[in-house]
Amino acid sequence: MSAKSVRRAKTSPLRELPLGKVYQTIEPGPVVLLATAESGRANVMTMSWHMMVDFEPPLIACIVSEGDYSYAALCATRECVIAIPAVELAGKVVEVGNSSGRDIDKFAAFGLTKIKAKRVGAPLIAECFVNLECKVKDTKLVDKYGLFILEVVKAWQDPKQKKARTIHHQGYGTFVVDGERITLKSRMR
Amino acid sequence: MSAKSVRRAKTSPLRELPLGKVYQTIEPGPVVLLATAESGRANVMTMSWHMMVDFEPPLIACIVSEGDYSYAALCATRECVIAIPAVELAGKVVEVGNSSGRDIDKFAAFGLTKIKAKRVGAPLIAECFVNLECKVKDTKLVDKYGLFILEVVKAWQDPKQKKARTIHHQGYGTFVVDGERITLKSRMR
Repeated sequence: MSAKSVRRAKTSPLRELPLGKVYQTIEPGPVVLLATAESGRANVMTMSWHMMVDFEPPLIACIVSEGDYSYAALCATRECVIAIPAVELAGKVVEVGNSSGRDIDKFAAFGLTKIKAKRVGAPLIAECFVNLECKVKDTKLVDKYGLFILEVVKAWQDPKQKKARTIHHQGYGTFVVDGERITLKSRMR
Repeated sequence: MSAKSVRRAKTSPLRELPLGKVYQTIEPGPVVLLATAESGRANVMTMSWHMMVDFEPPLIACIVSEGDYSYAALCATRECVIAIPAVELAGKVVEVGNSSGRDIDKFAAFGLTKIKAKRVGAPLIAECFVNLECKVKDTKLVDKYGLFILEVVKAWQDPKQKKARTIHHQGYGTFVVDGERITLKSRMR
């Protein structure tokens, strides 16, 4: 661990998010960033194909295809971080999605700040308002569909970004941004 | 096919949606309705745990747990319809989610109109702005997680609802509604 990463960890803006609340952040379908690290080299990709699978421990399914540079690191380390960006990061999210870790260090290129995670080798992303430390739990559908089942083992939120609005991809760089919030009488969790 | 369903089919407000565009409707993470039909009896449930798996033919993964009344019909018929409601239907979406097909006919109880589908026995829902006819393609993760892989075999959209705003569940009856739309220069499909 470098002196730099120690300093970063100490000044982390993130606070713990109870695992039972993780589904509330993923269920609405935000565009997320997926961070991996292999042999000390971190990478990040943009991802919209994910869903909740179970409440607690929180399980998440996602699609990472063999063509994605992150695929090899995810398979080898069986760990990743899912980080949720607010709309203010939309420009960087698109840049991350339009480039490959094969060619550049995306954290450096797009000014994303790594924070050391507690349970996985992949880094948290300081600018994101939610960070989920994940371990790969099931790979049965990876060969056929690139479908990974992840277990969230630790979760973080940025208390300074309480009103974060997420973005939802509609194809070809068009995103719909969170608008008004409505609450209806419901017995659904 | 009853005279009533013939009449309904003829006056269908829906137009075909190209299969290659289906991902644009599911990827943003809207709350959807899932319709099934078994032995001539249709049912519908509310669902937020779904994701795209492939572009074309469009594959969708979703979670339907054994506790859901729709589970048996989905397993037995291996067919369903995923229908996407706009925010104006939010009240009905919550009522559908808070009741069970064990006890009531939800289509009748909540005033949802069935339209005969082309390729599956489950009905389309006239009030929804997108309807996807689906066949179950893979059940390998059904026993463990309730995770179904569906293939969309026919898709429909309501041309009168071009500006439909979807809802995204954040837990306990709170939904965020689609807000502004932004477009960034992107090479991502």
